[in-house]
Amino acid sequence: MKTPEQAHSAPPRPHVAIVGAGFGGLEAARRLASAPVEVTLIDRHNYHLFQPLLYQVATAALSPADIAAPMRHILRDQKNAVVLLDEVIGVDPAPRRIVLRDGGSMHFDYLVLATGSIYNYFGHDEWRSRAPNLKSIDDATCIRRRVLLAFEKAETTTDDAARRRFMTFVIVGAGPTGVELAGALAELARAALASDFRRINPRSARILLIEAGPRVLAGFADRLSRFAERALARMGVEVLLNTPIGAVDACGVTAEGKHIEAATVIWCAGVQATPVASWLGLAPARGGTVAVAPDLSVPGHPRIFVIGDAAHVADARGNPLPGVATVAQQAGRYVAEVIRRRAAGAPPPAPFRYRDKGNLAMIGRSAAVADLPWLKLTGWLAWVLWSGIHIYGLIGFRNRMAVFLNWVWAWLTYARGARLITGDDPSPANDPWAGTGRPSEALDKVID
Amino acid sequence: MKTPEQAHSAPPRPHVAIVGAGFGGLEAARRLASAPVEVTLIDRHNYHLFQPLLYQVATAALSPADIAAPMRHILRDQKNAVVLLDEVIGVDPAPRRIVLRDGGSMHFDYLVLATGSIYNYFGHDEWRSRAPNLKSIDDATCIRRRVLLAFEKAETTTDDAARRRFMTFVIVGAGPTGVELAGALAELARAALASDFRRINPRSARILLIEAGPRVLAGFADRLSRFAERALARMGVEVLLNTPIGAVDACGVTAEGKHIEAATVIWCAGVQATPVASWLGLAPARGGTVAVAPDLSVPGHPRIFVIGDAAHVADARGNPLPGVATVAQQAGRYVAEVIRRRAAGAPPPAPFRYRDKGNLAMIGRSAAVADLPWLKLTGWLAWVLWSGIHIYGLIGFRNRMAVFLNWVWAWLTYARGARLITGDDPSPANDPWAGTGRPSEALDKVID
Repeated sequence: MKTPEQAHSAPPRPHVAIVGAGFGGLEAARRLASAPVEVTLIDRHNYHLFQPLLYQVATAALSPADIAAPMRHILRDQKNAVVLLDEVIGVDPAPRRIVLRDGGSMHFDYLVLATGSIYNYFGHDEWRSRAPNLKSIDDATCIRRRVLLAFEKAETTTDDAARRRFMTFVIVGAGPTGVELAGALAELARAALASDFRRINPRSARILLIEAGPRVLAGFADRLSRFAERALARMGVEVLLNTPIGAVDACGVTAEGKHIEAATVIWCAGVQATPVASWLGLAPARGGTVAVAPDLSVPGHPRIFVIGDAAHVADARGNPLPGVATVAQQAGRYVAEVIRRRAAGAPPPAPFRYRDKGNLAMIGRSAAVADLPWLKLTGWLAWVLWSGIHIYGLIGFRNRMAVFLNWVWAWLTYARGARLITGDDPSPANDPWAGTGRPSEALDKVID
Repeated sequence: MKTPEQAHSAPPRPHVAIVGAGFGGLEAARRLASAPVEVTLIDRHNYHLFQPLLYQVATAALSPADIAAPMRHILRDQKNAVVLLDEVIGVDPAPRRIVLRDGGSMHFDYLVLATGSIYNYFGHDEWRSRAPNLKSIDDATCIRRRVLLAFEKAETTTDDAARRRFMTFVIVGAGPTGVELAGALAELARAALASDFRRINPRSARILLIEAGPRVLAGFADRLSRFAERALARMGVEVLLNTPIGAVDACGVTAEGKHIEAATVIWCAGVQATPVASWLGLAPARGGTVAVAPDLSVPGHPRIFVIGDAAHVADARGNPLPGVATVAQQAGRYVAEVIRRRAAGAPPPAPFRYRDKGNLAMIGRSAAVADLPWLKLTGWLAWVLWSGIHIYGLIGFRNRMAVFLNWVWAWLTYARGARLITGDDPSPANDPWAGTGRPSEALDKVID
């Protein structure tokens, strides 16, 4: 915000609107701190979410506030930045305006679209409420509720088939999120909950990780995939490869013509870009992304940039860059530099080049894989590296300390600190829990 | 749970059903650990909630998991205890069965009803969605969402009257919860949020604490009430005494014929007992409670006990005991002893007598009041005492550490660690936010 004095004396500075406060958008906003521009960072949520740890909220290891940092607080000292809690629903490139959910619109001189991706149900949107995915905090607390309720329902039901259904958890998709969630779920069942029930043995919960492709962690080196698969098997996760999902219904999933009864199904399969391409009237590239120019601007719209999961950028060998935090962050830093130079009348920087820092995935206690450019690590060392990098990536001392202390505590006690069933399922009509009520008068069995 | 062997060799032990895992119910369950009985602890939630700190969740200082401990985890080593996540909706005293929400029922030999109280809207249940109260975690996150959204909406609206409405917070009822909430809200606005906005100054938020009676903290000594009132005034809280609320509508409250425009209204006024009296077919005592016998059993039903906020117990001078945690805890301990002796064939203990340990209330940073039997404290010393007792009262090392560290951090930085807007308002139709949309095209002012 300008002071009234500045507003009269200084020439107007270009306005950079950044849509999305994820890794890319937030990095772009912060890197513009010293640039001669005004920045508005717009997000539907009032916080930057550290998505790589969202699966730990879903499995009761961390609280939402541990992995979320309020946007306003992050940018409170950045004088040229304004935060807006709102949802962008469209772009008018010619008059250079973005359209907001509640009817307003906003002018921009430069626009950075860092809107990320959403889960793709392969055209079956009716699966969405039956098999929640893991993108937002509300998604994570929804999954946490379903997982914890499944054990509660298994404890009280008197129907053996229903009990087996409640004790079966299906995770669709064995990318990093699916693998990490399966491992964390196995630890929850085998350790944290192990001695807390009387009639069921949580250790006997079935956890299935179902993947359409031929291996887990497809983006990693072959050897690491095999390590992860073995580690998951040791933890009691059943990994089904080459098994595309045919249907999701109220009682489980159908794969390869076989129905697997499961009350809890979690969707970690493919993602697609947010509808940025259609906002801009462009033909979408792979996965709904926008194919951008070497400076990450949109062809034909030099003032509009797309970064992160919503952008299609090819590496030196022509392969698309993966939808991970480091790609978005490096792109955010790059467009901030492009805009800074353009606003200052300086020549543009060299085309964007992604510096691959590698991939990490956690499987479980003392087991992780690290696929680094110069090194492949498994086991304990990868686990330490994973933990350190994730704590470092969090914003602010408070969240780093909170996550660190929660991990130390969980490591020492095997317990999970956030085992709360909160909120209601928004759509009881589509609820996989419907029709699983207990036969009347049968409850005395609970105390037998 | 009995092992199969015990089930065959030992005579059946009496079954104690405890309804409600609050301070009273949980204490009763734990104190029965060594008694020759089987215990079932039933609650609608899967955790014991430390209600005295709920206002800190509502004001973004603590996370829900910091003040909640999973029932199963607390009782995991108590071999004679079973936990049931369910809702009791009635009691059949003659066949000694309790009726559960989803159609089941359960036999008991002894029944402890520790179901607590709910907020009373003085017959105006339509106020409930407009003025949420503070009883559950979902209530607290709802209030947190509304409070944080109010500042966001005030920042973006271009309508001066709407901005004033969003910046006005009304708390109805100046008991301990109302006073603590008002103080915490003042600290949130004046310190934590102070430099995070660009167009509004959160310091200028109006916080009104409206009380029908002649003083704040009516249960405390007169001198402490006056101290609390002055401390609140110093923090910028407007305290209106002798001001009963006439109406709550979508735009605020009406009191003494005057309408106060406020987007956020929080209900901390009177409570009433859960409908235990009607379950038992009894005429309710004051506030819907059940007047119990000197051994806390229900007259005519010697195997049924009512404790805590749902019970009417008079002290030596004939005044009803207050609805606070220590009364419920002492009563829980007492009925556990009654049941233990009766199950063992021993003579009953002396009638229940409440040992008053005093009352505490927090106002703000380094300001609290302590009304102890032998001492009245105000200011810094009361604040230290309040903090120590509340940390001590939490269940488990993890939650004690989490709350302690959050407080240290908040004390040092003035920041609030859980400033997240999560979830949706369940009833948008009754939402005080409706109709407060922004005029189209006006948004550019945000960045002016």
